[in-house]
Amino acid sequence: MYEMILPELIIRNDTKLVMLVIDGLSGTTDDNGLTELEAANTPRMDKLAASGSTGIQRPVGIGITPGSGPGHLALFGYDPVKYQIGRGVLEALGIGMKVGKGELAVRGNFCTMVDGIITDRRAGRISSEQGQKYIDMLSSKIKRIFDIEVEMAVSMEYRFAVIFKGSGLSDMLSDADPQVTGERPVTARPLKPNAEKSARIINKFIELATEILIDQHPANSVLMRGYSLLPDLQHFDERYGLRAVGIATYPMYRGLASLVGMDTPNASGFSIAQEFEMTSQLWDKYDFFFVHIKKTDSMGEDGNFAGKVQIIEDVDREIQALLDLDPDVLVITGDHATPSVLKSHSWHGVPLLLSSKFAFRDDAEKFSERECAKGILGHFPGFAIVPLMLANAQRLKKFGA
Amino acid sequence: MYEMILPELIIRNDTKLVMLVIDGLSGTTDDNGLTELEAANTPRMDKLAASGSTGIQRPVGIGITPGSGPGHLALFGYDPVKYQIGRGVLEALGIGMKVGKGELAVRGNFCTMVDGIITDRRAGRISSEQGQKYIDMLSSKIKRIFDIEVEMAVSMEYRFAVIFKGSGLSDMLSDADPQVTGERPVTARPLKPNAEKSARIINKFIELATEILIDQHPANSVLMRGYSLLPDLQHFDERYGLRAVGIATYPMYRGLASLVGMDTPNASGFSIAQEFEMTSQLWDKYDFFFVHIKKTDSMGEDGNFAGKVQIIEDVDREIQALLDLDPDVLVITGDHATPSVLKSHSWHGVPLLLSSKFAFRDDAEKFSERECAKGILGHFPGFAIVPLMLANAQRLKKFGA
Repeated sequence: MYEMILPELIIRNDTKLVMLVIDGLSGTTDDNGLTELEAANTPRMDKLAASGSTGIQRPVGIGITPGSGPGHLALFGYDPVKYQIGRGVLEALGIGMKVGKGELAVRGNFCTMVDGIITDRRAGRISSEQGQKYIDMLSSKIKRIFDIEVEMAVSMEYRFAVIFKGSGLSDMLSDADPQVTGERPVTARPLKPNAEKSARIINKFIELATEILIDQHPANSVLMRGYSLLPDLQHFDERYGLRAVGIATYPMYRGLASLVGMDTPNASGFSIAQEFEMTSQLWDKYDFFFVHIKKTDSMGEDGNFAGKVQIIEDVDREIQALLDLDPDVLVITGDHATPSVLKSHSWHGVPLLLSSKFAFRDDAEKFSERECAKGILGHFPGFAIVPLMLANAQRLKKFGA
Repeated sequence: MYEMILPELIIRNDTKLVMLVIDGLSGTTDDNGLTELEAANTPRMDKLAASGSTGIQRPVGIGITPGSGPGHLALFGYDPVKYQIGRGVLEALGIGMKVGKGELAVRGNFCTMVDGIITDRRAGRISSEQGQKYIDMLSSKIKRIFDIEVEMAVSMEYRFAVIFKGSGLSDMLSDADPQVTGERPVTARPLKPNAEKSARIINKFIELATEILIDQHPANSVLMRGYSLLPDLQHFDERYGLRAVGIATYPMYRGLASLVGMDTPNASGFSIAQEFEMTSQLWDKYDFFFVHIKKTDSMGEDGNFAGKVQIIEDVDREIQALLDLDPDVLVITGDHATPSVLKSHSWHGVPLLLSSKFAFRDDAEKFSERECAKGILGHFPGFAIVPLMLANAQRLKKFGA
């Protein structure tokens, strides 16, 4: 719906919009009947909830647990079912590689072959340093295959990512990975006729890599899978008339922000306070600020309820720095739930608070799943958040006369 | 959305899922300001609501009153607007006939003709016994028309159902029923070119039936309408990885369950306690249990507020038998509302409670429309219930990386 009507409605003005994403923010109730957000002492966010509007947003849909890719695409206003970001692209973004439109990103493993049989799909779980050594060998010799440019980088231990750049690429290929040991390697096969070129290139890459690594140990070949072609995502400026910046400590989230055209200054290793300080420094340069807090999700993944509570309280304590900037529209939400009791992402809804001059002041007295579920905004798909922010910034014209 | 992404997300495990459907469960407030569910004393379901999640599900959409077909298709996770079950199929299922994919089910009336004019479209509302006598006459002589196998059964009084089995059938036909008396019979006309074969078969059926009944009274011909071809519904096992069983006292609901691949043991005439006992007996054999309680709807249709309250209380009293099975996920809901004040199905939302280890414990203290409307699950389409149950059973992988 939005893609059909937004183009005619966009207005540019001087308003400043902030989307604060607390990764894995929401949860489910534990034995005490509380989530991490409910257990946290968050007087500043509670005050924002009390003076603004609240609701529950669903990144993908009821019952669906979003990965980080779909969770963020929804936050940025793109239907995450329509625009799917494959594993190869995410792997590449996660290690800070840039992926452009029409480029094919692939995940690779270094593996061990003996007498033509794969005996270890992870080459003895080599160190990242060893992996880097192999990547240096490959990247010095494989820069181009046919008319396609090749870039690669190690992601962790035996895992690496390759980006193929050029025209006519497709991700409709079978894995060049038998998935089990004791088998001969398999080649990438085209799943659609227009993927034949890509299959030839992947298979050539494997052939070249195996030649280069022939005398190495423990890795002497590679497996390739997770092919993904970057979908054509309209950029923020064109789509919303917003000059946007993504401030995030992890490359993956900067990468996701860059896919939709955000600038992504390096904030690696930044504290929450430093991220907010960077927001302040960039205040005049942008209209839209995506600020990403990672550690809530990490604590949830670790099953560390108290740790997640602590990070949420840290955000609350530091948030005054954002409020001092006096944004016209501030949204605080998450990209998905990461309940400590599940130690993983989950399907539970994500609370959202909207603070703006024109936000309906609903009955929520606290920022929590429970209160937001009764909020004035109801339960709605994540991809509606940016349009809602634009509306509150008076950046959208009336639809129809 | 679900049909696009679920196939890649399904995990099989040993969890047990129970969907208890109280037919026509919800209502609207009467003069005392209460619905039947609110007036009922339901301590056990209230306790489940208090310890689990609640919400309002909409089988078709706001303002739309679902028939039993759409109501149940939604409960089973199929968009009821996309997959429409025609009246012929429902008539056949309601009398316990089996309908297979690509088969054409048709509703028939016995009628009275005098001098080539239809004088009574219901043949004087003959008894079901008389109807059975006519059906015996027809079915002994019409077993096949061209290459199409013919099966028929009386449904009630002057009404019957016919199933045509074979290839190349279509339901795009005009009614062979003038709808008024004092007119000549009309033939079935193809509404699309590929329906010509079906039109010939229907018209041949009418011709043969009229010849067989020529000396009978009061019925001496038949009218045919409500053509419906069974849509291709993916079965539960393939769609969700669930071995499913439907436990229902009425053939119609067993029939609907069988359309999506559930086994449907005969529970005709069973009490609520007997239905729950059957659930227990089948516990090891299945993953998903659809348990259907009919009499709430019947009481609502009769305008019997107190009777509907009584049945709801009966369910609550017997429910301990289901709880003793300790299902991993239990959902209690209805297929639509049947308010006594309307004496019919209605468009009102349907409360739902979800009990599972991972369900958010929201603020609902009672199982009622009013409490569920404020629940953590919000208001959502009925076809999202099965995905939500799968998620709570940890039977769905994360979507995207």
